Amino acid sequence: MVNDSPKLRKIATEEAWCIPEVAAGLRAVTCGPSSSLDKLLLAGIYDAAGKTSGYSMFNFLDGLLDVEKQRLAEMDELGIDMQLLSLTAPGGQMFDADTATDLAALANDCMAEICRRRPTRFAGLASFAPQSPKRAAKEMERAIRTLKLNGFILNSHTHGEYLDDPKYWPILEAAEGLDACIYIHPRAPSDGLKGPLQDYGMDTAMWGYGVEVGTHAVRMMAAGVFDQFPKLKICIGHMGEAIPFWIWRINFMNGRAQKVGRAPKTKLSIEEYFIGNFVITTSGVEDPLALDYSIRRLGIDNVMWAIDYPYQPMKPAVQFLDSAPITVAQRHKLYHENAERIFHIEPLSTSAK
Amino acid sequence: MVNDSPKLRKIATEEAWCIPEVAAGLRAVTCGPSSSLDKLLLAGIYDAAGKTSGYSMFNFLDGLLDVEKQRLAEMDELGIDMQLLSLTAPGGQMFDADTATDLAALANDCMAEICRRRPTRFAGLASFAPQSPKRAAKEMERAIRTLKLNGFILNSHTHGEYLDDPKYWPILEAAEGLDACIYIHPRAPSDGLKGPLQDYGMDTAMWGYGVEVGTHAVRMMAAGVFDQFPKLKICIGHMGEAIPFWIWRINFMNGRAQKVGRAPKTKLSIEEYFIGNFVITTSGVEDPLALDYSIRRLGIDNVMWAIDYPYQPMKPAVQFLDSAPITVAQRHKLYHENAERIFHIEPLSTSAK
Repeated sequence: MVNDSPKLRKIATEEAWCIPEVAAGLRAVTCGPSSSLDKLLLAGIYDAAGKTSGYSMFNFLDGLLDVEKQRLAEMDELGIDMQLLSLTAPGGQMFDADTATDLAALANDCMAEICRRRPTRFAGLASFAPQSPKRAAKEMERAIRTLKLNGFILNSHTHGEYLDDPKYWPILEAAEGLDACIYIHPRAPSDGLKGPLQDYGMDTAMWGYGVEVGTHAVRMMAAGVFDQFPKLKICIGHMGEAIPFWIWRINFMNGRAQKVGRAPKTKLSIEEYFIGNFVITTSGVEDPLALDYSIRRLGIDNVMWAIDYPYQPMKPAVQFLDSAPITVAQRHKLYHENAERIFHIEPLSTSAK
Repeated sequence: MVNDSPKLRKIATEEAWCIPEVAAGLRAVTCGPSSSLDKLLLAGIYDAAGKTSGYSMFNFLDGLLDVEKQRLAEMDELGIDMQLLSLTAPGGQMFDADTATDLAALANDCMAEICRRRPTRFAGLASFAPQSPKRAAKEMERAIRTLKLNGFILNSHTHGEYLDDPKYWPILEAAEGLDACIYIHPRAPSDGLKGPLQDYGMDTAMWGYGVEVGTHAVRMMAAGVFDQFPKLKICIGHMGEAIPFWIWRINFMNGRAQKVGRAPKTKLSIEEYFIGNFVITTSGVEDPLALDYSIRRLGIDNVMWAIDYPYQPMKPAVQFLDSAPITVAQRHKLYHENAERIFHIEPLSTSAK
């Protein structure tokens, strides 16, 4: 059925997509000498020679490269009004700075073209190359002001470094100045974190992705980044990468660490930063209890719906939120109102449909 | 007030304690060449020369070495009937195998003496030296059969290795055979995991401890350890080190990893292992919403009260559970009934008081 009612618009906010040029670059990575733990999954998705990989059964690459065929047809079938697209992890972050800068611009151009062609069906998070923070800031401005994209995607660490490092602050300054949210998406844990996460498939979404992005977010809060950029908005997926559940302990122990001089003094508490500067999505966690907890802990305005297509199937994600024991008003917030506010997506009432 | 009523016995289940011989060994570690991230906290607690450390304000060492003076007086004052003691982290796990084996036996003798002297006030989790798994198994048998202790403590990794490694399975076999639960307590993340956890005080309870123990638990479940030892019981603190909140995703992604051949096939699902083979405690997480979530997610029989003394103060931990919005029956389970069952502590009705 096609959802043609304005009353429960469904906007999915963490939806992966790729361009052939980035796919070719990632395929090359799988044959190269990188020590990155990302190679395990990348080989399964991009290495044509890796047909022995069980991942081939999922056809992730076909799903990533397609937008207006199978993806759109399935969205129609399930009543999904819009996907907020983003270049799939690790984006250009494994490439050299110049290649990454060029590919980010190319991907943003392609994405903007899709969004222009289907303005009510697709919106997009722009890429940038953190390897070159100053050029990244310029591309970020172009992506928002010229291409009219809706925010940014970052795939966690870049060569083992995180956004708390002041060298990346031109990026944070640009995002804050543009009032554009940065979605910190997982990639495999950085080299310094990967030791015991290399076994049993723990490098990816089973465990390592959450450890990686959770660590990134805590580093930013504990470093005091949000005192420098108080209006900066960060989105993390997967029901907040466990931080909502751990927030009491992180908050308590950060207070103690500040008291004994082991963490920088900050103006606000970790909990205040997490509720004030972060939003989360439900991608990949279809657990009604975890959703209920997150809403109660963070507030209904801080939670958005996401599928994580093509890595997660669309239908169960829709069924999950359709059947979640929440109020109609809450369902509107989760399905579209929060996404419209955070990612500056025009509400249906005022948009041509 | 002294709690002399049998109707709401309060047993705290993760209560740290130390003997002077282990304290001396840990002080030596802080002056040595170890690359372990544990050194940061150990220096604050044990290094007498480290008086510049802000940790001195907490006097953790005095609290660890005392049992029957300040600790017992405060238990009396707050109506805490019993503490389940354990040798504080990292126990003997940073020492050589022979030293660790000797110190574990010494600590167990001292602990058993305390428990004999105050049978209604103290119970204890025995130590063992994983560096020598066969001798560990012997000490484990002595600790339960001869010393009548109540279970075991392990401080996560040993030289970067985890209990999924078959070399440690004599330990798991002993624990299962003795029907004695192993409490996996945090220590700082292993060398392979520590990279981005070394800044802003993130090495300890703010973030690193949970990442370390959570990783340990997921490794055991994903490796299929509980197919080998189906009756093995593992306890983890700090509201389950985030696993309860992440269980849907861990479970889903482990299923996929098994399907594509990236994780070992197991008889049961991760969620079944976590609910069947694990119990959790509330140590260090005084958040009513996280407690409510955990009870609903894991079942009331799988959650126990703990303080984490002397690292956490007693009074707020009592106030937390006294004021939690739970039923009287649930409060009995959390405060004592589950601990009596899991750690074989004689219920009050049949014990001499």
